[in-house]
Amino acid sequence: MSKLMKSWVESANSDKSPFPLNNLPYGVFSMGEEDPRCGVAIGNLILDVAYLEEEGVIVLDDEPVLDLPFWNEVMELGQATWADLRARLIDLLSEDGDPVLLDDIEMRSRAFVAMDEAQLHLPIVVSEYTDFYAGKQHAQNMGAILRGSPDLPANWLHIPIGYNGRASTVVVSGTDIRRPLGQTKAPDADMPSFGPTKRLDIELEMGAIVGANSAMGQPISVDQADAAIFGYVLLNDWSARDIQGWEYQPLGPFQGKGFGTTISPWIVTAAALEPFRAPTPEREKELLPYLAGSKDGLYDIDLEVLMQPEGALTATSLANTNYNRMYYSAAEQLCHHSIGGCAMNVGDLLGSGTISGPSRSEYGSLMELSWAGREPFMLETGEKRGFIEDGDTLTLRGTAKGDGYQIGFGDCVGTILPAISTPFETK
Amino acid sequence: MSKLMKSWVESANSDKSPFPLNNLPYGVFSMGEEDPRCGVAIGNLILDVAYLEEEGVIVLDDEPVLDLPFWNEVMELGQATWADLRARLIDLLSEDGDPVLLDDIEMRSRAFVAMDEAQLHLPIVVSEYTDFYAGKQHAQNMGAILRGSPDLPANWLHIPIGYNGRASTVVVSGTDIRRPLGQTKAPDADMPSFGPTKRLDIELEMGAIVGANSAMGQPISVDQADAAIFGYVLLNDWSARDIQGWEYQPLGPFQGKGFGTTISPWIVTAAALEPFRAPTPEREKELLPYLAGSKDGLYDIDLEVLMQPEGALTATSLANTNYNRMYYSAAEQLCHHSIGGCAMNVGDLLGSGTISGPSRSEYGSLMELSWAGREPFMLETGEKRGFIEDGDTLTLRGTAKGDGYQIGFGDCVGTILPAISTPFETK
Repeated sequence: MSKLMKSWVESANSDKSPFPLNNLPYGVFSMGEEDPRCGVAIGNLILDVAYLEEEGVIVLDDEPVLDLPFWNEVMELGQATWADLRARLIDLLSEDGDPVLLDDIEMRSRAFVAMDEAQLHLPIVVSEYTDFYAGKQHAQNMGAILRGSPDLPANWLHIPIGYNGRASTVVVSGTDIRRPLGQTKAPDADMPSFGPTKRLDIELEMGAIVGANSAMGQPISVDQADAAIFGYVLLNDWSARDIQGWEYQPLGPFQGKGFGTTISPWIVTAAALEPFRAPTPEREKELLPYLAGSKDGLYDIDLEVLMQPEGALTATSLANTNYNRMYYSAAEQLCHHSIGGCAMNVGDLLGSGTISGPSRSEYGSLMELSWAGREPFMLETGEKRGFIEDGDTLTLRGTAKGDGYQIGFGDCVGTILPAISTPFETK
Repeated sequence: MSKLMKSWVESANSDKSPFPLNNLPYGVFSMGEEDPRCGVAIGNLILDVAYLEEEGVIVLDDEPVLDLPFWNEVMELGQATWADLRARLIDLLSEDGDPVLLDDIEMRSRAFVAMDEAQLHLPIVVSEYTDFYAGKQHAQNMGAILRGSPDLPANWLHIPIGYNGRASTVVVSGTDIRRPLGQTKAPDADMPSFGPTKRLDIELEMGAIVGANSAMGQPISVDQADAAIFGYVLLNDWSARDIQGWEYQPLGPFQGKGFGTTISPWIVTAAALEPFRAPTPEREKELLPYLAGSKDGLYDIDLEVLMQPEGALTATSLANTNYNRMYYSAAEQLCHHSIGGCAMNVGDLLGSGTISGPSRSEYGSLMELSWAGREPFMLETGEKRGFIEDGDTLTLRGTAKGDGYQIGFGDCVGTILPAISTPFETK
């Protein structure tokens, strides 16, 4: 197991910090009215890498690529540059590296900001968003709940099933989510009705960020896909189960999913996660050869879901599971995404699918945790919940545990606002 | 019925020209090695509006917005600017308008290029692509073919059903399409197999281009949606039926659709189509009130599908139908797309769904025309076809017919290349 890399930034050396030198995740931040720009988390600080680039301490390209409100330009520079940047950051921040920052008091004072005083923004421009369905326990649970049988769809063990989601409503942690309006139909009703969803849910997922372009008509292999993934975020695929249930046949989820997807503020790079690689489980059916890869494609990342009602002093932990529970890896998903010739682009976001482990305390959605609301769960406040109520705050947390250190993503948080009372502005 | 508006560009006054003064569709063109820029079709010429903006003959904004390879910046300027631009173009090109261009021989010689010498490019940056399923005859045919019954899905008469497609493979007419690889499974096979699709198809659609942004959490009404549509293109939603058939349950089409979507080179503005508005058919079930609008949302546009095998001298006309056959309008679709709070953006592209009329000669896909290949159709070459073979060129054509003039989109054309023999580059 990999060990803590020590930094001269003291707060980064605590085994409680999600942001040790081993991590160095990438985000976008601003202070006050300043323009958002690229930053790197270290301990309880953010390193202003846009400033260091301006000072010539970090050089990635002829043009500045860090004084921007997204990491897409860095991704465009390619894998060698990603490695160079990480190596340079480790050199600048490690106890025994290049002292240029450590020794220059003025530069040091300008290069760091306190994380808790910064505003964090969406770290990438999301090109397109695709959501997958790679959790076997989740697929079985949904089958049992919705169709009365845990049998997997016939294609499930052969295809890393995915569908195109909506990029325009991917938001950063901390963005409030408005309860969506939509059509629903009770099983015994003659006609559908219109109104706020009554079955608002989360889906606990990891998001893989594609960092390389592939051409239309040119699929990429699992190994090429693995190398193309820039990093990972936590991802909450908010879902309106009743809207989804009425709309999704025959063409899949649409307005039941399109109102919001929240990602964590920090992108943990694939490089930082390298020590935590984990294998996919034994294949129950042999995969077609195009889905073969040479690396363990999952990661050992502990995941937690928490819920806090409005006004409550504490959040209740609802579920604990691990990303290594998935059946398909992000690299397999990305390869499959490209196999028909679909061009993949820098900034594409791939949701893993809901991550649920084998027991109820490991289920990654409220649909599963409350078994479609039939078996409500208890919060620490004494309240019962089947689905999300207005004012509830949902938090996803992820941690990869090394030897004396941990890797975090920053919490992935969203609070639910009441539905708007009339759908359209009157002008 | 509206009459021809006469232009001093003689070729625009022919009742055979798809590009009279009444039309003035927007495209992106280049000559030789020049950078692509915005142009307007008139007769057999393209008006170089980027040049006219540089000369100060067209003024839309403080910054140039036409010397760009997309129309998105013009769309961002809003509906009043769209109207101003159209009015200015009509003034510059009509027989009795502003003579500044007509009278300046040097400017005139620089401002026009021959359309058949220009390279046409994708006219917009496609933000996101959504495909709908609004053709009732098509939905019934697909039900009959795939499920043995023409009964519509339970939600079909209530929801303008749509799913998110893939923007990264939307291409302009003339771009070759490579036959996709993918997983398929024969009904009697134990395991899926991998290879080129054997059921490559088209879908005849119209594409609506969204020209205004709406915020996350803020739905727009049908009337607001109608006003937000910048214009229309022809759209071929290439489909691999066997890949789609194996993958689409439960989350909808994915790799069976993601390999390519072709649009016509010219965007015909909603303003140019205004005289051709047509009502949606009588509602068989009353729609929920949020889907109410005050305008006729369809357009009377004749549509044709043609197929030409490699080496054949002529194309065979396979089907003729009309956009006014649809059950839902683009404005209804756009309203529904936003109703859950999904943010809609300038450059979003909405496919109408396959347009099929009531008789077989009006069917907008080969799946329907050959009844899933069971009843192949004959080409003028004497060849039979169930689906598309390598080298076949498929063309969509659209015409709105006025009094002594017609409005066209430019052909929407694609030729099929053979599948690649090995899916991955070896390095």
